[in-house]
Order: sequence, then C-alpha cells, then structure tokens
Amino acid sequence: MGKGRLEAFSDGVLAIIITIMVLELKVPHGTDLEALRPLGPVFVSYLVSFTYVGIYWNNHHHLIHLVKKVHGPVMWANLHLLFWLSLLPATTGWVGEHPHMAWPAALYGIVLLAAAIAYVILQAVILRDHGDDEMRREIGADWKGKLSPVLYLAGIALAFVSPWISELCYVTVAIIWIVPDRRLARAARGSDE
Amino acid sequence: MGKGRLEAFSDGVLAIIITIMVLELKVPHGTDLEALRPLGPVFVSYLVSFTYVGIYWNNHHHLIHLVKKVHGPVMWANLHLLFWLSLLPATTGWVGEHPHMAWPAALYGIVLLAAAIAYVILQAVILRDHGDDEMRREIGADWKGKLSPVLYLAGIALAFVSPWISELCYVTVAIIWIVPDRRLARAARGSDE
Amino acid sequence: MGKGRLEAFSDGVLAIIITIMVLELKVPHGTDLEALRPLGPVFVSYLVSFTYVGIYWNNHHHLIHLVKKVHGPVMWANLHLLFWLSLLPATTGWVGEHPHMAWPAALYGIVLLAAAIAYVILQAVILRDHGDDEMRREIGADWKGKLSPVLYLAGIALAFVSPWISELCYVTVAIIWIVPDRRLARAARGSDE
Amino acid sequence: MGKGRLEAFSDGVLAIIITIMVLELKVPHGTDLEALRPLGPVFVSYLVSFTYVGIYWNNHHHLIHLVKKVHGPVMWANLHLLFWLSLLPATTGWVGEHPHMAWPAALYGIVLLAAAIAYVILQAVILRDHGDDEMRREIGADWKGKLSPVLYLAGIALAFVSPWISELCYVTVAIIWIVPDRRLARAARGSDE
Repeated sequence: MGKGRLEAFSDGVLAIIITIMVLELKVPHGTDLEALRPLGPVFVSYLVSFTYVGIYWNNHHHLIHLVKKVHGPVMWANLHLLFWLSLLPATTGWVGEHPHMAWPAALYGIVLLAAAIAYVILQAVILRDHGDDEMRREIGADWKGKLSPVLYLAGIALAFVSPWISELCYVTVAIIWIVPDRRLARAARGSDE
Repeated sequence: MGKGRLEAFSDGVLAIIITIMVLELKVPHGTDLEALRPLGPVFVSYLVSFTYVGIYWNNHHHLIHLVKKVHGPVMWANLHLLFWLSLLPATTGWVGEHPHMAWPAALYGIVLLAAAIAYVILQAVILRDHGDDEMRREIGADWKGKLSPVLYLAGIALAFVSPWISELCYVTVAIIWIVPDRRLARAARGSDE
Repeated sequence: MGKGRLEAFSDGVLAIIITIMVLELKVPHGTDLEALRPLGPVFVSYLVSFTYVGIYWNNHHHLIHLVKKVHGPVMWANLHLLFWLSLLPATTGWVGEHPHMAWPAALYGIVLLAAAIAYVILQAVILRDHGDDEMRREIGADWKGKLSPVLYLAGIALAFVSPWISELCYVTVAIIWIVPDRRLARAARGSDE
Repeated sequence: MGKGRLEAFSDGVLAIIITIMVLELKVPHGTDLEALRPLGPVFVSYLVSFTYVGIYWNNHHHLIHLVKKVHGPVMWANLHLLFWLSLLPATTGWVGEHPHMAWPAALYGIVLLAAAIAYVILQAVILRDHGDDEMRREIGADWKGKLSPVLYLAGIALAFVSPWISELCYVTVAIIWIVPDRRLARAARGSDE
C-alpha cells in the first residue's frame, strides 16, 4: 500500500475537520453588534482549534514523509489519531459556548491529550520500522512533545479551579507548536540525502 | 478511465462520511458531566461506525489495487457501495440516540448488510476482469466475508429480542475485520511480482 | 494550469455534494417503523440525486479527459456547472419532504435543467479548443443530450399537473444516463491513439 | 515539503467551504413559491460568495504555481488565508438572512478584507523567496489588488449608510476579479520558460 492514498485520505479528513468546525459559528438571529457578542468565545475557540489542526497537519506531513511502506499498524495508528481529532469540532463548540465552565474546558483538554497520545503512538509505530538512531535521539530530545501532555494535564485539572487558566494552558501549547517541528524536518532531510 | 480519479473520489466520499458522522455528537446544552451522559451511546456508536468506515477504506484500497482499467460496471458498483456507506451517519445517529430500541438497531444492521453485499458485488465485478485462479481460491476461502453477513442477519433478527445483543453482533464483525484482509494483500503482492 | 488540480477540486466538490445530501436524511425522533415512514420519499429523492451526481461525475471525467490546457473559460464554465450541482442537496431535501407538491418538483427540475445547460456550455468551451470533427459529429448525434432537456422541461411543466409524473420524468433521465456516455469514451480513446 | 500536499489540502478546504455554504440555503417549510421568497437574498449572497471562493481558488493556483519549496512561513500564511475564507459561510448566511441591515453587510466586508490582506501576505512571503524583478514589477502594477481593499473599506463604511450600496461594492470586486489574474499567469509562464 503506497503512502499516497494514506496522505490523501488524512488530508481529506483534516480538511473536513478544520472546516466543519466553522459550522459551530451559527448565524446569529439578531442583526446588531450585540447579536455577535456571544460569538466572541466561539470565534476564539475556533481560532485555537483551527491552529491545532494546522499544527497536526504540518507535523503529520513531516512524519508520514518518513514512511516508506504503509502496513496495517501504521494505517490503524493513523486512523486512531484522526478519530480523536475528529472530536475537536464538538468539544470546540462546547467550550466556545460555555467558556467559563469547568467541564467543557476539561473535556477540550482530554480530547487534545488523547490526540497527543495517538500522535506519539503513530510516531512510535513509524519510527520502529523507519527510524534510525539519529532520529530516535532527536525525538528523545523533543521538549515540545514532552511539555505538551504536561500542559494538557494541567489544563484538565485546572479547569475545575479556573476555566480561564485551563484555556490559557491549551493556547500556550498551540503557540509553542506553531514553530514547525525542526527535528523531524531535519531528520527527513537527512534521510533524503 | 484511470483508477486514480476513482480512488480520489472514493477517498473523498469516505473521508466526508467518516467526518460528518461526528456532527451527530451534538454540543450539549448543559455544562456538567450530567449533560454528557446521553452522549455516551452516541459516542460508542460513532466509534463503531468510524471503525467500519476505516475497515471499508482499507479493504477498498486493497481491492482497487487489483484494478487495471476502470469501466462502467466497476464505477457503478463502486458508487453503489458508497451509497450504502453514505447512509451510515444517519443510522449511526439513530442507534446512538436510542440504544435500547429494536428498530434503530435493526436498521443499522440492514445498512451494514447492504454495504457488505455491495462490497461483494464490487469484488465480483473486479475479479471477473482482473482475477486469476489463485485470487479466486483465496476469496473462496474467505471466512470473514462469509461470517459477516451471518452476523449482520443475526443482529437484525436479534434486535427485536435484545438490542444489546444485536449491537454486540455488529461490534464483533468490526473487531474481526480490524485485522487487515491478508488474502487480498497477498494476492495483490503476487500480481505485482 | 494543469488539469490535475481542476479534476481534484471538481472531485472534491462533487464528493461533498453527494455526501451532504445525506444530511437531509434527518435522524427520526421516534423509534418504531412508523417514525421512518416520512423518510421514504426523502430516501428515494436522495437515491435519485445520488445517481445524478454519479452520472455527472462520470461524464465530467470523460469530458475533462479531452482537455489539454485549462484556461479561464474552462475553469469558469466548470465552476458554473458545480454551482448548479451544489444546489441539488437543497432541492432534493425540498422534494423529498413534499413529494406531492408542485413547486418542489418544479424547482428540482429547474436546477437539473440549469446543470444540464451548464454541462452543454462546458462541453462547447472544451470542444472549441480540443475537439476534432469526429467528436463534433458524435456529440451532434447525441440523442441523450437532446432528450434530457426536453424531459426536464416536461417535468417542470407537468409538476403543476401531477408531481408524480414530473418526478417520473427526472427518474427516466437518470435511468437513460446510467449507461456511460459511449460516444465521448470512444472519442477519448480515439484521441489517445 | 512538496507543494503537492499543500495544494491538495487547500483544494480540499476550499471545496468544502464552497459547498457547506449551500447548507445555509435551508429547505423551506412551505411548499409554494411564497415559501421560496426569503431564500432570494440567501441565494444571491451564496452566488456572490461562491464566485469569491472560485476567484481565490483560481488565483491561489497561479500563486502556488510559483512556489518551489514549501516551508513554515508559506504553510502558515496559506492556513491564515484559509482561516479567513472559512468564515465566509457564516457571514454569507448572516448577510443573506438580513440583506437590509448594516452589521451583516459590514461584517461580510470585514471578512473579505481580512482574506484579501491574508492573500497579500501569502503573496509577499512567496515572492520574497521565488519572485524575480519582473514579477515584482507586475505585482506592483496590480490595479485590481490595490482597488479591492479600497472597495472593501468603502463597503464596510457604507453599510451603515445603505447596506445595498455596501453589497454593491462587494459584487463589483467579484466582477472585477472574474477575469483571471493575467499578470501572475504571464509571470508563471515566464518562469516556466
């Protein structure tokens, strides 16, 4: 199985996830600026989730670039990652509608944490077959990949203290990741040479 | 007609089916854990249907890999399969909202059965032109493909006895199929050599 | 501009049109067979529209196959066709909910007629640059392409006499077209040689 | 990172944006012509937004054609553009439902302006790496690119005087751009030679 179709399918699913999130931005019934006010938090949560899907799409690209042959475990680890990301629209809508409440903020973090774990599993499955020592060393020194779950866990726990601090944790992770994952990019370049 | 566009179109439709199912996971109006409780069965039915679409996507890939030239019958048999799979989001939503009721469980199985029959038809159309004796022997020994419709039929009938047992039948088929279809993979490898 | 991206974009739009139509199949609130009854006409109208999009996708493929260079007019004629096809989900939903009423049946035919005209325009734009005499002769002898608008017009007019006869006209056109467009396929084969 | 996947992802997102806008065309509850009347402005706003996405898709294609290597800044500038375009379905729905009101017309223009700025940023990022003097001269002489933001700003301000004039501004920009961007097309041809 070539990786072309895996990429095409993943791109399709990610493109749809990133776009149907906007369906949560429901057309307001009023017609003045006041009618837009409740959309403020929905807009911000959409922006953050859009950024997350963009980050995953980018890193996913670098990761799949390493793959030479797609077999069952890679395909299922990839679907597993897409499954958790596909829950983002629902949790984004919930946290956007209730930005001051504990459970929506916690659930948003739980889905992000699950997606991060799924990404680590996919990475492990791919590196088992395709990695070399240098890549493993680089991944091992991956402070972003190690900091993110800590911040997700902090966000989940702090949701019950202050949803705002919880949401700040998630925004922090997104900002950290906007810089593309240089290690993998470098490793991929190395494997091309 | 090259098979590239058939694959691209099928991937697109499958990617959309797998993603719009998540629209059934409606944002709850409440904000506590209680508000999430009715989403439990919706979540489980989403997970099962997501797995089914993943299985079809994977097997579809192996099957189309055998195709050398796409003509009318292959195209229509493929659209026929996509038609039944496109009904999955609606039946998934119904069974997720009413997990204890007979008709939702039965209808879910009817759509799965119809998709399975459509897959067998597509397989027959493709093998008629592209198969060799070895492939036909392998397909003939396909215990999964023979067991699945039996379990679907059992699920449909048992829905009126106990929806839970019915749903267990469908989950069982999904688990059986998660292991990729080794026969076709092997046959495809053989035809590459 | 290569035609690869035109095909990819068109496939994407057609895949989404064919799939979001299923969103009209709303999950029923009841849980018995009775609750499914109003979905009967919705299901039939979905099946007919699904078939129409499949036909357009297939013929579109054969037509674009002739294109060597995509320029502005081809791109806009193609978007024009996609525009009318994108209205199918809405008219399908309307006619499915009110199968016995005149205006839904008429509007369904108007959108089909507009799409057919858009297809003829796209065909003319492409053949102007890429056609040879044989293709033009074959297209000129195209009884399907000439019969379809007559049946659409009949369907639109008869909607105000009997919606059922109107809907029968549309189903008839779909059945006529399910057989792939042999002329273009042959012409394309000829231009490959 | 090759540009193939950037194009595929952008095409996917644009195809979904252009198609989910049609979901705002809600199936009317009535069954006569009267029931369709409120859909008139929704239809027109859908047509205008469909045209805008078509224009962006076309120009995006010409722009990305210039790219030789996709790196972080190009990818994020592209996602930034897609983000603003993804807001079009929501603002299209709002302005279509309330065509006589100030804020919907103003917000529609704000999103168009933001998308135009995002396009200029993407163009600047790409030309920085890939442009030559001739391209820069042609872009510098781009009267369309200079007129559009002026018309958007006029539309936003005039929304509070007369929403109709505001909406006329946006339609004017769309008409101006329907003619494909000859400068970039010529530059791209030049860089091919």
